[in-house]
Amino acid sequence: MKAELLSVGTELLLGEILNTDAKFLAEELSMLGISVYYQTVVGDNKKRLTDALELALSRADIVIASGGLGPTPDDLTKEVIAEAMGETLVLHEESMRAIEAYYQRVNREMPESNKKQAMLPEHGIVLANPNGTAPGCIIEKNGKTVIMLPGPPRELEPMFIDSVRPYLLQKSGKLLLSKNLRLFGIGESKLAEMLQDLIAKNENPTVAPYAETAGVRLRITASCRDASEGEELIRPVLEHIKSLVGAYIYSEEDKPLSQTVAECLIAKNITIAAAESCTGGMFSKMIVDYPGTSAIFSESVVTYSNEAKQKYLGVREETLARFGAVSRETATEMAQGIRRAAGSDIGVGITGIAGPDGGTAEKPVGLVYVGICFGEKTDVLELHLTGNREKVRYTACQNAFFRIYQHLCDC
Amino acid sequence: MKAELLSVGTELLLGEILNTDAKFLAEELSMLGISVYYQTVVGDNKKRLTDALELALSRADIVIASGGLGPTPDDLTKEVIAEAMGETLVLHEESMRAIEAYYQRVNREMPESNKKQAMLPEHGIVLANPNGTAPGCIIEKNGKTVIMLPGPPRELEPMFIDSVRPYLLQKSGKLLLSKNLRLFGIGESKLAEMLQDLIAKNENPTVAPYAETAGVRLRITASCRDASEGEELIRPVLEHIKSLVGAYIYSEEDKPLSQTVAECLIAKNITIAAAESCTGGMFSKMIVDYPGTSAIFSESVVTYSNEAKQKYLGVREETLARFGAVSRETATEMAQGIRRAAGSDIGVGITGIAGPDGGTAEKPVGLVYVGICFGEKTDVLELHLTGNREKVRYTACQNAFFRIYQHLCDC
Repeated sequence: MKAELLSVGTELLLGEILNTDAKFLAEELSMLGISVYYQTVVGDNKKRLTDALELALSRADIVIASGGLGPTPDDLTKEVIAEAMGETLVLHEESMRAIEAYYQRVNREMPESNKKQAMLPEHGIVLANPNGTAPGCIIEKNGKTVIMLPGPPRELEPMFIDSVRPYLLQKSGKLLLSKNLRLFGIGESKLAEMLQDLIAKNENPTVAPYAETAGVRLRITASCRDASEGEELIRPVLEHIKSLVGAYIYSEEDKPLSQTVAECLIAKNITIAAAESCTGGMFSKMIVDYPGTSAIFSESVVTYSNEAKQKYLGVREETLARFGAVSRETATEMAQGIRRAAGSDIGVGITGIAGPDGGTAEKPVGLVYVGICFGEKTDVLELHLTGNREKVRYTACQNAFFRIYQHLCDC
Repeated sequence: MKAELLSVGTELLLGEILNTDAKFLAEELSMLGISVYYQTVVGDNKKRLTDALELALSRADIVIASGGLGPTPDDLTKEVIAEAMGETLVLHEESMRAIEAYYQRVNREMPESNKKQAMLPEHGIVLANPNGTAPGCIIEKNGKTVIMLPGPPRELEPMFIDSVRPYLLQKSGKLLLSKNLRLFGIGESKLAEMLQDLIAKNENPTVAPYAETAGVRLRITASCRDASEGEELIRPVLEHIKSLVGAYIYSEEDKPLSQTVAECLIAKNITIAAAESCTGGMFSKMIVDYPGTSAIFSESVVTYSNEAKQKYLGVREETLARFGAVSRETATEMAQGIRRAAGSDIGVGITGIAGPDGGTAEKPVGLVYVGICFGEKTDVLELHLTGNREKVRYTACQNAFFRIYQHLCDC
């Protein structure tokens, strides 16, 4: 089965936004074993959109169009597709009610123009959009399938996963089963080197590494008739990988490191609190990202100034004066101080120089100390990180989470 | 002048990498006033690449191909383009020397296969690549221009800026100047409705709205001979827009809301501190995202539990018992409490139900109270937000920043 992607939007042609939708859809289709030979980006222009759609339909079985489902007159995707597929647009009552309900929820008056979004192809399969106002739609005709999805990634991605993936799975009859491992503390090229035999073999299942912002994802993909055959194929390869690089693997379920740690803390009923300087709340925010964390997380402090470090955490003036705010000693006292203040099992203290300014020869931008206090014992990581301010801070948090993960595995 | 982008690479079709090259090239071309009507992504396949190139040449004056200039046999871009343009590939001595020098610099032996990269179209304009081994090339023939660039962004971007942009500027002789306004508190469709005359006119300059996660961007684009003519064209349109929707505009420099607020706080030397419940540190993190905020931000607390709200902020037990943790009253006491604790000018308290669980009929998921205490006065926003946990929390922060922005404009 062949598919093509048709991304609609002048903002893409003008280079205002990155085409993350195309990457997402291409990756998902690849996992479903559906080949994509072309991706096309076209603007909100009737003639050119029609031409691009017809070309795509002449080459592929399935065309997935994204974008151009908005309420404004320059949103043309639905109209063009309906015309090309010989479909009439009719008012879809359920979608109309969903759009009205959406505006009620956000406490705003629905503009007249939004009614256009409830006009849908008469014989289409409507895809609900709980995250926005534009419903998606699938049209099947003459052996071709066109799937329309809204452009914003927060709407497109859940709609694909909840509605389109099950539809395509049923259609293709074959299954690609993937297992995504997440690793930390090893680079992509080092990992590829350590697993070169497995990667080069390119048998069923295949093994491929992907670099992430901090860490690596390793994907094992089996082509199979059903899930249980797929699992049988994957199991020995997974065991082999674990025997080689098991120490770096923190998730076999493709879960982010922070989520893995949060869930593990909840499962073991171990409480945590953080004192953050350069990360400014990022570490705590990453814990609260997951529902249910109130069981193990009650408080944190952002102590950006020296005064705040003293006031909330009892970091000693002498420590700050002698070793500086960015030091092993301050990180230790921050971790111990927040653990004491919060009465938690684990205390985390993060202090560093995120840049772009503030670095010196002795303490350059990218130097971060992470103190982690587990009861009597306090570990301090000294990190020398690269990248911009955001990346330094994010990588510091990831290092903290990985050290906690290692600790949780031991206890 | 019309251009098309042709991105070559199976890794794009598989969704392994984001097409940042297309965004970069599209944005650059747009600024040069060169229209891009289509972008196509195609794999390393001779037949399909040839078809895509011929189609692009039939529609555009200039085709910019990126990727597929590597040394391996599956890199076909140059061969396919040369054939389509009737060009022979010949050894380009200077490029050969540059590739050899590159390998000397990185202290590695040059693989035999790299010689392929020095084979270039006989009548092409060769573009040097100081950041890699693949030279770029421009071929002009029969009124059409094909430009080949290497795929890796750190090679493509400098090559475009140093060699291709000057070439295209000379060719086109015109410029597009854009101004991006950022708005909050108004939806894309409402904005489009209020500015429909301006948008529909589609004159020079053009006006177009784009939805963001929370807020809208409005772009004014003038086609002009030079920057000062562009500014003259944009000025009256900007004034007109400000007279209609000025109250929603927070940036005329395309800056994020949190950055606008952070910079404004620094400029006015007004200090801020936050007490966060459902946002879990996100608001504080967004302030610390910008360098230089230590002048106006020294501390925040994440008070996820009721106990933490009492301990750090002095929220009264009676308030929590009578009105609940998610209430106007608690948000008020949180804002006042953190302002008192931090001794800051502004105190922010955020408490809400981010979901997916924890909602009730009376207090549904998405209900968030934001208290903002400016000296004697405390404002409370009652927000009814939609979307997932992450979106609810992000939109709550954006609402807090916008209210602070409004306050800062008044003082």
